[in-house]
Amino acid sequence: MKTYRYPAKSAWKSMTRRPVIQREELSAIVQEIFQQVQQNGDRALLEFSRKFDDSDLETVAVSNDEIKAAEKMVSKDLKAAIVQAKQNITLFHAAQQNKIEKIETTAGVICWRENRAIEKVGIYIPGGTAPLFSTVLMLAIPAQLAGCREIVLCTPPDQNGNINPAILYAAQLCGVSRIFKAGGAQAVAAMTFGTESIPSVNKIFGPGNQYVMAAKEYAQRFGVAMDMPAGPSEVLVIADENAIPGFCAADLLSQAEHGSDSQVVFITTDERIFDQTIEETERQLKELSRNEFAGQSLANSHFIVLNSMEEALEFSNLYAPEHLILAVNSFEKYIPNVQNAGSVFLGNYSCESAGDYASGTNHTLPTNGFANSYSGVSLDSFVKKITFQHLTEEGLENLGNTIEIMAEAEGLMAHKNAVTIRLKSRQ
Amino acid sequence: MKTYRYPAKSAWKSMTRRPVIQREELSAIVQEIFQQVQQNGDRALLEFSRKFDDSDLETVAVSNDEIKAAEKMVSKDLKAAIVQAKQNITLFHAAQQNKIEKIETTAGVICWRENRAIEKVGIYIPGGTAPLFSTVLMLAIPAQLAGCREIVLCTPPDQNGNINPAILYAAQLCGVSRIFKAGGAQAVAAMTFGTESIPSVNKIFGPGNQYVMAAKEYAQRFGVAMDMPAGPSEVLVIADENAIPGFCAADLLSQAEHGSDSQVVFITTDERIFDQTIEETERQLKELSRNEFAGQSLANSHFIVLNSMEEALEFSNLYAPEHLILAVNSFEKYIPNVQNAGSVFLGNYSCESAGDYASGTNHTLPTNGFANSYSGVSLDSFVKKITFQHLTEEGLENLGNTIEIMAEAEGLMAHKNAVTIRLKSRQ
Repeated sequence: MKTYRYPAKSAWKSMTRRPVIQREELSAIVQEIFQQVQQNGDRALLEFSRKFDDSDLETVAVSNDEIKAAEKMVSKDLKAAIVQAKQNITLFHAAQQNKIEKIETTAGVICWRENRAIEKVGIYIPGGTAPLFSTVLMLAIPAQLAGCREIVLCTPPDQNGNINPAILYAAQLCGVSRIFKAGGAQAVAAMTFGTESIPSVNKIFGPGNQYVMAAKEYAQRFGVAMDMPAGPSEVLVIADENAIPGFCAADLLSQAEHGSDSQVVFITTDERIFDQTIEETERQLKELSRNEFAGQSLANSHFIVLNSMEEALEFSNLYAPEHLILAVNSFEKYIPNVQNAGSVFLGNYSCESAGDYASGTNHTLPTNGFANSYSGVSLDSFVKKITFQHLTEEGLENLGNTIEIMAEAEGLMAHKNAVTIRLKSRQ
Repeated sequence: MKTYRYPAKSAWKSMTRRPVIQREELSAIVQEIFQQVQQNGDRALLEFSRKFDDSDLETVAVSNDEIKAAEKMVSKDLKAAIVQAKQNITLFHAAQQNKIEKIETTAGVICWRENRAIEKVGIYIPGGTAPLFSTVLMLAIPAQLAGCREIVLCTPPDQNGNINPAILYAAQLCGVSRIFKAGGAQAVAAMTFGTESIPSVNKIFGPGNQYVMAAKEYAQRFGVAMDMPAGPSEVLVIADENAIPGFCAADLLSQAEHGSDSQVVFITTDERIFDQTIEETERQLKELSRNEFAGQSLANSHFIVLNSMEEALEFSNLYAPEHLILAVNSFEKYIPNVQNAGSVFLGNYSCESAGDYASGTNHTLPTNGFANSYSGVSLDSFVKKITFQHLTEEGLENLGNTIEIMAEAEGLMAHKNAVTIRLKSRQ
């Protein structure tokens, strides 16, 4: 880990820098995969599964029998946990529904917005070491609340051609309409173009490795939207003298175990907390099962002492962390200072894993500094807000002259004429 | 124009296709421009201005004197029109502010969202034949309402090194903090990296040619967000037997005059309205000053008769138009059927130009079929919605076991431990 005591502000900018992602090489590979899937559909997917997942599938579709069997394989405890998490996520996201509010901006001119679900959405769930059924909840629940007509899920199979039962259980519980065994850029290509089995979608969500990310970006060229750009996961913990070093260390490590490229930043205003948190982190690291990842990502972590909470928040806003933990007593007074962050955890008992799984907030959040301009996934991510306007004849009379003058000044005479012809018809 | 009477549904998909944008060639040019601006800052911008704008500038910054002089050059009528438009746009966008609503998802677990302005935003306004001061209103007003700290505007100068006074007037009226003479991909590069004069920003908004669009996409690699992908502007008009052919024709032409690649679609359920609207369109076209554009874009337009309003809306949803005009009497009953559109204009007196300028809705809208997944610009486009959560000790007690079970099932033991260590400390 890298430690800093009272670094000069001039050094902050370089301390907030993320590792550079090499992108140029990927685009040729992704382009080739898209071409294969567009031309050969399911056949290409089955071939990629043999090649990349070491899995010999007969079909990409998950059958109803597989889903039913999965339900039996998930323990009663895990089912109950998933159901409680679903309840909380549903409560929080359902409250994000907007009411329609009609605004009469000028007499006879009424404007409003209405939400419409994005019709078809795709969810990508990575395979690999951790079966991310929690991400299924985070994406399928708001999709279903929004009213998306088709919710498609793609995830790579294991070597036996199976999908983790918890993923299948969560998917059917949260209204996923169809589940497919497809991973990587090829899954994104399939949801972009559609294949014999997999429907094309309007927007693709979900985490993944750099190939998946590059594929989601590439899909935009074919009219498919994506949730947000992504990079490695991050946490920034700010601790004052009331923080509990063991808790802080546990939070830092829970971020570090995500992968060797995870970003971990610890800031405190208290020298004692600084030393003790470093000690605790090293102690707890030894007990961790995934400590090869955690150890590597801790090697790149920043442990920083700063002069004041104000400085700590200034640094945090510059960094724009995906997750921000305020392990301080009187967190209320610092909330207005939080400008750039994905999700914020307040006080000593709000650990990041609460939000990762079950508090109700969404865990799909902006990384890589994008928290300075992007929000995390919410109900909004699954709808379009369409504006409507109705001008009565009187409305156009009240506003017409203004429109005519502006259109003429922009040199757009047909825009002006669309008003003039209507006003004249009333005389 | 292309006319279709009762086309088979199997033909619809190809009728909704947009012209393909060639993108590959652009990226090398844009990359080179970005490199120049990153290395040479203002000097590169001045050179590009000589080359592309035929303008010999001494500095890229617009002075206060220039802004004051501009105010005197804008007519009293145009100022009054801009002020009325500003009022309506302000009213409509101010109503988009969310109240904070705290949700207790589990006893002791409180979650909510708070809006934070994106700190620094950039607005690009194209030069060319039409001085788009209306777009200044559409982007600067919500930026100011959101509370953006820095609102930067770039627009190319004319051959004399000047900017259209209406653009300068609108910019200062709507709280733009700094205005610069820079156009094209180089302006986007300047707002991405910053130069000696131009500050870097977090998100870039505004229309532009294909170089500007490619530049906005490229800027994302450097952590700068963009409003939305873009293509040529579009209108789809649906007319029933109560529509007024002269009005419909005027609306179609006001779209067609935007440029030769504008997309114009007319659908009616009435043969008489069909014939008369075609006639009226040809008649009005002859009177238009920009009819070289309008004529070209009309050549690619679709005029379609369909059997019913239901079919017309089905076609429209497949097309996903930027602007949808429902020139029908009982438009209320069709509103729920509108699934994919940027902005909708209801009845015979709601011409598109009302929304383009002054009704209050935003005219920065998704094109190219992206209305099936994107919303137009709104107050939301200028804020991040940060989630906050506070778990009391009791809150974690109520939720802790669920988190532990889920974390363990995903194989993330450090996530589990962040809960366990806290629960244990209370025993």
